[in-house]
Amino acid sequence: MSDKKTISGFSKLSKRGKIKWIVENFFKEPEHVMRELMSYWHHDDEQQKLLDGFSENTISNFPMPYGVAPNFLINGKTYAVPMVIEESSVVAAASSAAKYWLARGGFKTEILGTKKVGQVHFSWGGKTQKLESVFEDLKTQLRAEAADITNNMEKRGGGILDITLVDFTKEEKDYYQLKVTFETCDSMGANFINSVLEQFAKTLDKFIAAHPIFDEDERDVHIIMSILSNYTPECLVRAHVECKVEDLGTFAGGFDGTALAEKFRKAVRIAHIDPHRATTHNKGLFNGIDAVVLATANDFRAIEACGHTYAARSGQYRSLSNCTVEHGIFRFWMDIPLALGTVGGLTKLHPIAKRSLELLGHPSAKELMQIIAAVGLAQNFAAVRSLVTTGIQQGHMKMHLLNILNHFKATERETENAQEYFDGKIVSFTGVREYLEKNRENVQI
Amino acid sequence: MSDKKTISGFSKLSKRGKIKWIVENFFKEPEHVMRELMSYWHHDDEQQKLLDGFSENTISNFPMPYGVAPNFLINGKTYAVPMVIEESSVVAAASSAAKYWLARGGFKTEILGTKKVGQVHFSWGGKTQKLESVFEDLKTQLRAEAADITNNMEKRGGGILDITLVDFTKEEKDYYQLKVTFETCDSMGANFINSVLEQFAKTLDKFIAAHPIFDEDERDVHIIMSILSNYTPECLVRAHVECKVEDLGTFAGGFDGTALAEKFRKAVRIAHIDPHRATTHNKGLFNGIDAVVLATANDFRAIEACGHTYAARSGQYRSLSNCTVEHGIFRFWMDIPLALGTVGGLTKLHPIAKRSLELLGHPSAKELMQIIAAVGLAQNFAAVRSLVTTGIQQGHMKMHLLNILNHFKATERETENAQEYFDGKIVSFTGVREYLEKNRENVQI
Repeated sequence: MSDKKTISGFSKLSKRGKIKWIVENFFKEPEHVMRELMSYWHHDDEQQKLLDGFSENTISNFPMPYGVAPNFLINGKTYAVPMVIEESSVVAAASSAAKYWLARGGFKTEILGTKKVGQVHFSWGGKTQKLESVFEDLKTQLRAEAADITNNMEKRGGGILDITLVDFTKEEKDYYQLKVTFETCDSMGANFINSVLEQFAKTLDKFIAAHPIFDEDERDVHIIMSILSNYTPECLVRAHVECKVEDLGTFAGGFDGTALAEKFRKAVRIAHIDPHRATTHNKGLFNGIDAVVLATANDFRAIEACGHTYAARSGQYRSLSNCTVEHGIFRFWMDIPLALGTVGGLTKLHPIAKRSLELLGHPSAKELMQIIAAVGLAQNFAAVRSLVTTGIQQGHMKMHLLNILNHFKATERETENAQEYFDGKIVSFTGVREYLEKNRENVQI
Repeated sequence: MSDKKTISGFSKLSKRGKIKWIVENFFKEPEHVMRELMSYWHHDDEQQKLLDGFSENTISNFPMPYGVAPNFLINGKTYAVPMVIEESSVVAAASSAAKYWLARGGFKTEILGTKKVGQVHFSWGGKTQKLESVFEDLKTQLRAEAADITNNMEKRGGGILDITLVDFTKEEKDYYQLKVTFETCDSMGANFINSVLEQFAKTLDKFIAAHPIFDEDERDVHIIMSILSNYTPECLVRAHVECKVEDLGTFAGGFDGTALAEKFRKAVRIAHIDPHRATTHNKGLFNGIDAVVLATANDFRAIEACGHTYAARSGQYRSLSNCTVEHGIFRFWMDIPLALGTVGGLTKLHPIAKRSLELLGHPSAKELMQIIAAVGLAQNFAAVRSLVTTGIQQGHMKMHLLNILNHFKATERETENAQEYFDGKIVSFTGVREYLEKNRENVQI
């Protein structure tokens, strides 16, 4: 069935060898594509080698736009926030919301918790009460035998917070967890937590095999897996903005503060009652969050998975943000779990991510949580404000048109004419190409 | 309160002007940082201008590793899959799972639906039954007045599928939706859908103002917002792999097929019953999905938000993938909603994304859905297989060590020694630096 485009030992080829195999087997113009892919390499070989090492089978760099949203006032301190995002309007919206709230007291944030979570999942056919009765001994041994791993983290003020036994045997025969909470300070903590848990699994096995309380037939523990949980509802930050309704100002579409506040409140309320709207509402929020997560070389998949699970914690998927208009005060806020690091992982290794952290003033993980929560709230504010006033298409279409015109290397004059022509129209790649072809033909005539 | 690091008119500065303001106000070595940021620009100005236009306030490119996972056999066709991801082990794991299943019949996928969703949210104080009684007329007018926008999409085989009225007045006073489903063919459809919906809002307003059935006090409709929903549970793809348990082979840790299958099944089952595990389980799946989504310039925030909402649809956040071991057959599969485009947006504009689509053989949106679902399933397979056999730390630590050694420009000999020294130990940036400092001092002595 295979059409022969398979290979053995690809990962062992040199980078050039990999590119060569790829372009020769999958592209019509192999040499041209090879040159193009290589044109994205950094000119400094050492730098490029570092970038190549972040992943496997790397053949080039995929450039993502690195932008900056200035004027973020958060807890009285001003930040210019680095954002990595390929979607138009996101950085513009964040910047606009930042400036808007700069004039209204800025963003206020607070850390509600920094607990990380890990689990040792195991099968065991023994008597639960027996394990519970010796659990304090087990905990002591778990901590003692992980001491080599936890020493350094403890010096930095972190370590293992708590270890509990979770009995899931009603849901799945013989299935238990050691559920462990951690403080990992300025690191996201994945490596630390996973190393501790893998050691815990060994200790658990040994403990049950050796402890006199267990009968012969209770001595076998089957470790299923040991791994951190990306769901960290107690690694939580709160961000909020507020001002008098009368200070909200006036908006496109002729809205005064009162009308905007009420419509805004209603839009957020809708995202609480309808999962179809909630998904998009939160998606917009993560546009801002992920852009900073990427810029600081944190892991956006972890942030997304955690945030969305949190949004579904009530049993229905809902908005992460909230809005009230009471006693003449407009208030917009959210609580969001964000497990982030400012040391460890790629944070200090990725050359631009390192600069992102410098741009933010070398924040601690806690400070970064607060910055990112504020950016998420700003993004959500800008999106909802735009949706309930002008709608979002006007802005999107303008940006999309410019991107396509750039692609076709349109001249300044062509660009101006096209902007006039497409005003109020749907912009599509084909539509713009056809327009330009006609227009350019005319010029030739 | 502000520390003066604010600015007016930032977006209007030239790119150099922006960088200058940033480096002078936020960095200790402005000239050095400016040079570094500029070193990531593409050498071709036209190309760089295109990249800059994708976002706003762009000052440089953020390089993400562009890797390839070969040997993906999907429905009998072989792919080399482009992946953009900054996390170690993801591409390696995808490649490994692809090769594993290449020898076992490959991935089978099927499209279960391609419906997109949009909503016009509105407040209206009239009698619901009246609106329902004239809804067919309204639908006709909605379609007619959007014809200019839908014509082209209809030519391509898509357009508006259905329009329904949703009554949410029990949850929120006077609140209704026009809920609209679309077929958007090879485009993700956001621009098309939003343009149609904004037109629908205008028609709705006009229709209710003019239709004789409504009384004077029923004539005011307040449009709250008109926008697509990123939750598309009927834009769904199924991916699966299966083989005889005896054909699974043997695994690290001394597992045979039977033992692996049972442990694997249990690990997936745990991700169904425990949200803490489900979050991480699905996160791993999205490691693979997002990498291809990014490589093809699709929108990973939309994909993430939709997938996680879908994972929570039962009222509890659960695993997206499923596993059974029955009658000697190991079967692993998932249904996942993926709203993707292979035309429109940045797909043809981002130079490397364009090459990604070429590498995949210019797939339709449906084919891309299937490729990405297969990669997600492969990623999930590799992660769970690794978790229930060797654990994941061993591999992670090796890769992390190499990254840090690259950062410090370690020689080949230093690298070998460090690999030996850190074998089985936790790898940290500080730990490696200290080790290298000592080691290098020794050499100097």
